[in-house]
Amino acid sequence: MSSDNNNEGLRLRRTKSVSRAEDVVKEEQRVRRSQPDKPCHRPRDSLFSWSSGFTDFTGLVNWAVILLFMGGLRLLLENFIKYGIRIDPEQWLIVLTGSHEGPGHPSIYLFLYSGVHNGLCFMIEKGLAANIIPDNIGVIAHVVNICVMITIPMIAITLKSTGFSLMGASFVCFIYSVMFLKLWSYAQVNYWCRKAKNAPAKGHVRRQSMSSETEKIANGHENMRLVVYPDNVTVKDFIFFIWAPTLCYELNFPRTDRIRKRFLLKRLIEVVVLFQLIACLFQQWIIPSVKNSLIPFSNMDVMKATERLLKLSIPNHLVWLTWFYLMFHSFLNLVGELLHFADRNFYCDWWNADNIDTFWRTWNMPVHRWAVRHLYIPLVEQGYGKTFASTSVFFLSAFFHEYLVSVPLRTFKIWAFMGMMAQIPLSLVSRFVQNKLGAKWGNVIVWTSLILGQPLCIMMYYHDYVITHFGEALIDSYAEV
Amino acid sequence: MSSDNNNEGLRLRRTKSVSRAEDVVKEEQRVRRSQPDKPCHRPRDSLFSWSSGFTDFTGLVNWAVILLFMGGLRLLLENFIKYGIRIDPEQWLIVLTGSHEGPGHPSIYLFLYSGVHNGLCFMIEKGLAANIIPDNIGVIAHVVNICVMITIPMIAITLKSTGFSLMGASFVCFIYSVMFLKLWSYAQVNYWCRKAKNAPAKGHVRRQSMSSETEKIANGHENMRLVVYPDNVTVKDFIFFIWAPTLCYELNFPRTDRIRKRFLLKRLIEVVVLFQLIACLFQQWIIPSVKNSLIPFSNMDVMKATERLLKLSIPNHLVWLTWFYLMFHSFLNLVGELLHFADRNFYCDWWNADNIDTFWRTWNMPVHRWAVRHLYIPLVEQGYGKTFASTSVFFLSAFFHEYLVSVPLRTFKIWAFMGMMAQIPLSLVSRFVQNKLGAKWGNVIVWTSLILGQPLCIMMYYHDYVITHFGEALIDSYAEV
Repeated sequence: MSSDNNNEGLRLRRTKSVSRAEDVVKEEQRVRRSQPDKPCHRPRDSLFSWSSGFTDFTGLVNWAVILLFMGGLRLLLENFIKYGIRIDPEQWLIVLTGSHEGPGHPSIYLFLYSGVHNGLCFMIEKGLAANIIPDNIGVIAHVVNICVMITIPMIAITLKSTGFSLMGASFVCFIYSVMFLKLWSYAQVNYWCRKAKNAPAKGHVRRQSMSSETEKIANGHENMRLVVYPDNVTVKDFIFFIWAPTLCYELNFPRTDRIRKRFLLKRLIEVVVLFQLIACLFQQWIIPSVKNSLIPFSNMDVMKATERLLKLSIPNHLVWLTWFYLMFHSFLNLVGELLHFADRNFYCDWWNADNIDTFWRTWNMPVHRWAVRHLYIPLVEQGYGKTFASTSVFFLSAFFHEYLVSVPLRTFKIWAFMGMMAQIPLSLVSRFVQNKLGAKWGNVIVWTSLILGQPLCIMMYYHDYVITHFGEALIDSYAEV
Repeated sequence: MSSDNNNEGLRLRRTKSVSRAEDVVKEEQRVRRSQPDKPCHRPRDSLFSWSSGFTDFTGLVNWAVILLFMGGLRLLLENFIKYGIRIDPEQWLIVLTGSHEGPGHPSIYLFLYSGVHNGLCFMIEKGLAANIIPDNIGVIAHVVNICVMITIPMIAITLKSTGFSLMGASFVCFIYSVMFLKLWSYAQVNYWCRKAKNAPAKGHVRRQSMSSETEKIANGHENMRLVVYPDNVTVKDFIFFIWAPTLCYELNFPRTDRIRKRFLLKRLIEVVVLFQLIACLFQQWIIPSVKNSLIPFSNMDVMKATERLLKLSIPNHLVWLTWFYLMFHSFLNLVGELLHFADRNFYCDWWNADNIDTFWRTWNMPVHRWAVRHLYIPLVEQGYGKTFASTSVFFLSAFFHEYLVSVPLRTFKIWAFMGMMAQIPLSLVSRFVQNKLGAKWGNVIVWTSLILGQPLCIMMYYHDYVITHFGEALIDSYAEV
């Protein structure tokens, strides 16, 4: 208490001396003010000096946005002056449905064929639920089914190489990848339910109590009407899951009460407009830039190649951002709204990610959630280490990245795989930076890798694609132009 | 009180019903969680949906900065690839001191000549202080002196057109403009002091009491040692004011106790480095861009001219920003530190300005303070309206902008004057925008006018300069290149 009093006294004394010093300053000010020369100067620091303590630079945010907008506008004008208008909507239909060289539209046939494997999967599950197929044979059948499914596009596209357009092949590979993950989830969730149902018979006490309690609650809450295994194994439920904007199956998806018409209309307009925008950016900006970058990359001219890489990175990044919004916000919300699917957590705030790991955990929530629920946790529960589990997730992700790029391009290089693998050291670097220099610099590394990493991979793939399929002659002919 | 109680009751009831609804949701969640299918979905909105209420986009600031930096780096590389290295430090010495065509260095002679008018001004003031020159004659002598001074560069540069380099002529015009404002301030402040000193004799009661009180305080506070008129009219005091980083004279400038050596060294390094940077940007980036813009501007090709304008605006803006920092922070702080001048308020936070008026009031504090103290307030005190006073300030400012551009370029067009006059409607627009759309959009308009307005004026002047001095032939020769 006495020390408190002392402090109080000290503070009072200090306040007094401060106020006395302030009085002197004020007095001086008053005397100076009263001079007939109307003084207008007083001691102060410039705002940029640290000693001024000034930190309000909010206007610079507007400045940065204006400069970006103007830079974009100028690039657009320069592009139109240089290349003329290259946008051609008709070409997109050809590109999407397959090239005109081969017979028919192989991409569409291949897309429709995926229904066969979906049907097989459902029938296996139905057999398992009705106890016609034994458990272990069912698991093997499921594994064979999805593994055969994922290899079909590889074989078809490689064999019938002239029939597929690049876009058509990419579309098919994308659909098959999604189906692979969905069928895996469907089979695994039904397996869990079967195990839980059979558990009481095996005398598993904890499970039994939980399960009976669940049934009691489920019966009590008639208004909740929770579906219980095996009532969920119906064609309607399976088709709903195949179309639902998620990769994780569950028996009782959260549903919305009604379709918001305005919301639906907005998303529909976004899908149409943004798809056109991406197509235009591709035709007008990326294709000429990539073509121009071929020579510097072949000649290993570092300065010119860097200039090209930076020039390509801007439209590429814009396309990626637009594609992200189109895919993860507009399209998935559109599907979700149509299907009364209530969980719209398709992405988290990856733009604030402080390190590479956080970015990979937040930008693609359907895949992230699938990986955690169907690969990471099951592996950990079976006694594997966490490192092994996360490495498995990483390898599966790298495999699908490679699959989605290599199969359509028919160049079995491993740039995409390497790109994914490069995330591991990059993740260590970004964590180090985040810890040493603060979260802001971690975020800077995430953005930089995102903006520069992609176009680098694209350019390497395109370079190899041209070399493999058209030979050195084309590069020479470009060099002359 | 009873209404309060009712409210309380309502709130309680509402809270209860809310908590009951929450209980139901929680119960549902618990039931769903306990299902064997490990549900992972729950109703939520996407972050980009308004209904999600998510607003944290801080990562996008880093994104914008990275894109700007990368865009700048690419432009730099493109520039080096296109034009090679054009930086030539030797040329700058020639440019600064005057061209080699004429005899000697006329810019330096003209700079030294300004000392004559400074001397005249001081002698007039000394005569007035000693009552040798009558008051009204002194005022006339001052006006004649500064008006003759400001016209000298006009005549010299126009007559001896080959002797001056563009930079040399600009430098001289700048020095003469500063001197004009400084001598005006010196004469006017001494006039105020004289009037205040003579006031008691004229029976001006309020002034008398103030003045005598001032003298009493001045005598009492020996430690403050305030200089009183006419003790201030000394050569030393006059020379200090001529070199001091301010345009407003006063008898007792606030002074610092010591020269901070580290601070001085930093400012000195900044001055040297930034000056080199501006010179490089000019030689490497602006001169080629301006030259390339000549043809589109002559042909009135809107699309190409816009592209050129946007391309020129980036380096021009960077040069302006660098020049601002170099001039207003580094150089003026360097001079201030050397002269123990304590008031370093050379600029306010114009980057946050919400409208054009605020920008003009905050970006150049020496001139703004001069205009308020020596033109606006005296005019208002003499009974003129505030609109007239601010218009006068505006016209004087427009005159000096025109003077600083037209005289060195020897093209008496009025683009700069028009540019300044265009600030009046622009100011109305920015105020309107600020009131209707919020402060942020006002700030956007300020930045846009700053980024785009300057290069537009530069291009118009350069175009006219080339046409006037080299004729149409040059444009034709450029068109062939």
